[in-house]
Amino acid sequence: MGAPDRLNSLPLSTAAPTERGDAARNRALLLDAARTLIAERGADAVSMDDVAAAAGVGKGTLFRRFGSRSGLMIVLLDEDEAAEQQAFMFGAPPLGPGAPPLERLLAYGRSRLRFVHTHHALLSDVARDPHTRFNAPATLHHTHVRMLLESAGTTGDLDAQADALTALLDTDRVAHEMTERGRTLEQLGDAWETVARKLCGT
Amino acid sequence: MGAPDRLNSLPLSTAAPTERGDAARNRALLLDAARTLIAERGADAVSMDDVAAAAGVGKGTLFRRFGSRSGLMIVLLDEDEAAEQQAFMFGAPPLGPGAPPLERLLAYGRSRLRFVHTHHALLSDVARDPHTRFNAPATLHHTHVRMLLESAGTTGDLDAQADALTALLDTDRVAHEMTERGRTLEQLGDAWETVARKLCGT
Repeated sequence: MGAPDRLNSLPLSTAAPTERGDAARNRALLLDAARTLIAERGADAVSMDDVAAAAGVGKGTLFRRFGSRSGLMIVLLDEDEAAEQQAFMFGAPPLGPGAPPLERLLAYGRSRLRFVHTHHALLSDVARDPHTRFNAPATLHHTHVRMLLESAGTTGDLDAQADALTALLDTDRVAHEMTERGRTLEQLGDAWETVARKLCGT
Repeated sequence: MGAPDRLNSLPLSTAAPTERGDAARNRALLLDAARTLIAERGADAVSMDDVAAAAGVGKGTLFRRFGSRSGLMIVLLDEDEAAEQQAFMFGAPPLGPGAPPLERLLAYGRSRLRFVHTHHALLSDVARDPHTRFNAPATLHHTHVRMLLESAGTTGDLDAQADALTALLDTDRVAHEMTERGRTLEQLGDAWETVARKLCGT
């Protein structure tokens, strides 16, 4: 009973040094190593031992920093989501501003398909929860697609059309299409393009 | 440990008489009463006591027949799904054969929206399971929509377009749109129509 209260009352500054010096360096090394291994083998085939070995950092340090394997995965997903958002909101065209809205929409679809494919394991855990399915960051993606549809002059109910389009990027759907039906990311991107073009009226 | 084995080894014939005579009559009375009450108040507000009282049947009979409240709900969903499938596969136009494919597609969307709204509580339990999300009866609905898109001469990847359309009929989405965003079934039907017409190229 007392422990959480005691933790809550600790001055915030005592946690700060873990981000400094070696700790920050180790954190970056571990995240980079995890990213490289996941890109090579898929998340399911990457153990904490693998990550520690590839980073040249002790396994104890890895667990102290991220708490658990799922803690590490959540930090990775979070950082990657932030980088992806940065790219489609503020990055270079055709994903970012500067390209015509339909071109941005097509680039977004293909980019997001790659993202959900790479991050399948973690994203599907989050999607399982009915309370998060229709909330952030899903809302951010919906809003982005809706904005591009609107900029492209799309007629009719924009929310429904954004939902129909984002449904094609659903993590479980993408995994199902690739694993059970042998579809490639290229084919899924082409299908997304067909639907996007029709909704935009081109 | 012994009880389940003992149940499994009972001869099947001992269960059969429950479907005969009074038992079959009681079953129909109970299902009708449950359907009426659910239509009036929504499934969440209907108790087993309500159903037994409305049917004029003892509560003991209700529990003997369906095992539990969720047993009753599953039988209701199952029978209603079968009746709905019968209607859109073999029933009168515009839902059934005889009407042009786009007209059937529009009728199907509005009919399914009403169905998932009425059956929200149970359908969302089933949808929660990742293994059933992309299997029957979801497959049947996908196949029906895909067939109508194809008959309507829709170009491009038909599976993706059927997925995009059926996503708009997702139980949790419909509940979210109506509860959190104040949309009506009419508005959701109009939005479905917009997307269906664009995909069919009309």
